[in-house]
Amino acid sequence: MLNPVTPDFEKLLRGLLPAAAFKDDSTPYLSEPRGRWAGQGLVVAPVSTDEVASVVRACAEARIGIVPYSGGTGLVGGQLQQKGPVPVVLSLERMNRIRQVYPSENVLVCDAGVILADVQKAASDIGRLFPLSLASEGSARIGGLLSTNAGGVNVLRYGNARAQCLGLEVVRPDGTIWHGLTRLRKDNTGYDLRNLMIGAEGTLGIITGAALKLAPCPAGLGAAMMAVASPAAALALLAMAGEQIGEGVSAFEIIHRQGFDFLSEVGPEIKQPFDEVPEWSVLIDVGLPAGLSPEEVLEALFATAFEAGLVTDGVIAQNHAQRDAFWHIRESIPEANRRIGSVSSHDISIPLSAIPTFIDRGKQALAEVGAFRINCFGHLGDGNLHYNVFPMPGKARADYEAERPEVKRVVHDLVHSVDGSVSAEHGIGRLKVKDLEKYSDPAKLAMLRAIKDALDPKGIMNPGAVLRGQMPPAEV
Amino acid sequence: MLNPVTPDFEKLLRGLLPAAAFKDDSTPYLSEPRGRWAGQGLVVAPVSTDEVASVVRACAEARIGIVPYSGGTGLVGGQLQQKGPVPVVLSLERMNRIRQVYPSENVLVCDAGVILADVQKAASDIGRLFPLSLASEGSARIGGLLSTNAGGVNVLRYGNARAQCLGLEVVRPDGTIWHGLTRLRKDNTGYDLRNLMIGAEGTLGIITGAALKLAPCPAGLGAAMMAVASPAAALALLAMAGEQIGEGVSAFEIIHRQGFDFLSEVGPEIKQPFDEVPEWSVLIDVGLPAGLSPEEVLEALFATAFEAGLVTDGVIAQNHAQRDAFWHIRESIPEANRRIGSVSSHDISIPLSAIPTFIDRGKQALAEVGAFRINCFGHLGDGNLHYNVFPMPGKARADYEAERPEVKRVVHDLVHSVDGSVSAEHGIGRLKVKDLEKYSDPAKLAMLRAIKDALDPKGIMNPGAVLRGQMPPAEV
Repeated sequence: MLNPVTPDFEKLLRGLLPAAAFKDDSTPYLSEPRGRWAGQGLVVAPVSTDEVASVVRACAEARIGIVPYSGGTGLVGGQLQQKGPVPVVLSLERMNRIRQVYPSENVLVCDAGVILADVQKAASDIGRLFPLSLASEGSARIGGLLSTNAGGVNVLRYGNARAQCLGLEVVRPDGTIWHGLTRLRKDNTGYDLRNLMIGAEGTLGIITGAALKLAPCPAGLGAAMMAVASPAAALALLAMAGEQIGEGVSAFEIIHRQGFDFLSEVGPEIKQPFDEVPEWSVLIDVGLPAGLSPEEVLEALFATAFEAGLVTDGVIAQNHAQRDAFWHIRESIPEANRRIGSVSSHDISIPLSAIPTFIDRGKQALAEVGAFRINCFGHLGDGNLHYNVFPMPGKARADYEAERPEVKRVVHDLVHSVDGSVSAEHGIGRLKVKDLEKYSDPAKLAMLRAIKDALDPKGIMNPGAVLRGQMPPAEV
Repeated sequence: MLNPVTPDFEKLLRGLLPAAAFKDDSTPYLSEPRGRWAGQGLVVAPVSTDEVASVVRACAEARIGIVPYSGGTGLVGGQLQQKGPVPVVLSLERMNRIRQVYPSENVLVCDAGVILADVQKAASDIGRLFPLSLASEGSARIGGLLSTNAGGVNVLRYGNARAQCLGLEVVRPDGTIWHGLTRLRKDNTGYDLRNLMIGAEGTLGIITGAALKLAPCPAGLGAAMMAVASPAAALALLAMAGEQIGEGVSAFEIIHRQGFDFLSEVGPEIKQPFDEVPEWSVLIDVGLPAGLSPEEVLEALFATAFEAGLVTDGVIAQNHAQRDAFWHIRESIPEANRRIGSVSSHDISIPLSAIPTFIDRGKQALAEVGAFRINCFGHLGDGNLHYNVFPMPGKARADYEAERPEVKRVVHDLVHSVDGSVSAEHGIGRLKVKDLEKYSDPAKLAMLRAIKDALDPKGIMNPGAVLRGQMPPAEV
């Protein structure tokens, strides 16, 4: 069993760290973006890897849990512990230095507490791209982005957070430091500890530094929105884009009419790209090498797709402002969703060819549960849909407390039946511990458990996240 | 302690598997490409995942070691066990079905025993590319390629074997099967077991199936060889190529004059691309989307690089035959090396910006050990050099038995001092177990050990590979 933080333990920590590491107000660290759960804990913010290590050693010694806290933008409760023995909440916000930039290597090494937008800016300052990009990039920090293997809009081209990382520095659950900050592209010396730590959601150690991979900036950027005949047509268009444009396709997002309807209903305000809002549309973003015109390449794609009957309408951005306007639509949908208030939202991924079936069956299956509005949108290029279920007009989230578990079960069962994943990019946190147990192959669960017990034998690292620990998983 | 295969155990296995699974001649399975070590063991070749599982269960029960055997092309002895209790050698050669191809998903699912060239062909048959490519592609099999996280010539653009894999089927050391054959691009449900198994060299389980990622075929292929002023100039040219051509650069190989000299001395025969052989040259390969001419793009790169003083001479392939001829040069160098016979060869990677320093210092440090010819060539784009040390003319490998350990130590110490890796793409096998111990961070070693013990508690999987097991590591 873990022990709670006591006044004596707090005194001990105050002896180890300077006063600046302690917060007067712990409130911001004990809430989460959707306001659904409240955490608990003593907040400390070490300024260096050595300070992190000394906190961890003290916690290990006293068998006190540690909840690593990065930008606090996670959506599955990985950053807060509601119940159980009061833990230490270890914030990385003061570890926010970019340690070194290697332009000739396309590498940037930084503390784990650096905000994503600051990494993007540092890359841009030397004419490079750090391709990880998502809605919370102004507050999400590198440590959390890596710990959750964050996704976002450019995964199709550049991969998820895992693919952007070459090396890590990690404080292990016993307080020793793994100096794994390599800048190498190839290193086959032993098991892949880097990728094990990435996506472990702070349950195997605390990432304190990272060597990140930068990419060349594409010479020409462009975007188009196209109305597609169906999800199947969208997939055929995706394959056609791959054949015609190759790796130049940076993002391929699908939007259902429901998203446009929500934007009309509750905002944010957007400029309608189509004369008539289509049932399904896609946003295609490209970044091309010198010598190719994004507008011409997208026009050629549209022409071929129109001829093949895949698209019925389309607009191609003629300048950066129009491209930004397209992205503003896409990025406003989550805010519109928040304003409506979902009954249940699902971050799922589906094998590409099963997506049309999933969308059809999902609609039918939910109709048997009740009357809902479904907003299905997201990163079609990666098979990652945000499949969110909303109240009918005039009703609110609170009117559906009874249906919620059944909605979630129906969606997740259907995802599982087509070999999909019930957490594509948000992770498990504490919200989906039971889903992980329910839908995972037993051999996989046995390996997860064995690894956790081997690397964190006292169970102090982010207790109850990913795997059931001393505490029962959160009720959802 | 492990037990050896006994006549009784063989009888038991013969009861579990049909006669076709047993080999009359085990010789080919007990040797390796350079002929330096001989293995031992009872060879069995199951035809299905269930048969593999039944062999593993029997071995686990009897505490008998298992050496997984794929294409047998590994260079570090991972596929054979010289000493210790006689193991079962489990060959995957009969598991050679391509299970299913999903053109619209760019995914191919196959048995682990499929030969790389057959996967490349199946991809090509549907107009796609499977980008993993290396010298032994006609005999190397997918299971071994994944287990060693193989590299090759296209890593710069497409990543190593790890980056080509979406999902795995694995028989665990207790004989249970992990059904992890997902085709999903995004799946954040628990720790990254896939990447843990990839590169584990068969020490954590046996990969029996894989879901592989295909890429669109580039519309236009091209190549150039350019004479560069120095390794530093080659690196500047690499950065320039990235800026001008982006992801279109598929390979960027460096060749030292020593390679050309060896080809002249012992063959294979090649067509000299340069009027005068330069001290350093590079082979640049590109694959571009429609609308760009590879020749024009490479000419533009050459012009900019010439103006910047980076290149002094260059030839651009005007057709596929010329491109093939350039690659024939590059791919003949390892054969020339074999004919000369190295004193010691090193598969190393170095942070890009440290490469010029490494090359200078390596030359100096080896001169203090003795007189050698150094052939330094390889995948400069990935920082991966094949840094091979050869006898002086008129002498042979056997004349340098006394110097070999010192040569290896000098090279590896130098690699380590510039934050490089002593195994970039070949893995640890049994040859580099001591190097892993010597050069690894203690925290890393502790984690490797903990993971091995947690996932293979009896230590039966490829005993003595990667980590010291019941047996002492091979003497090298």
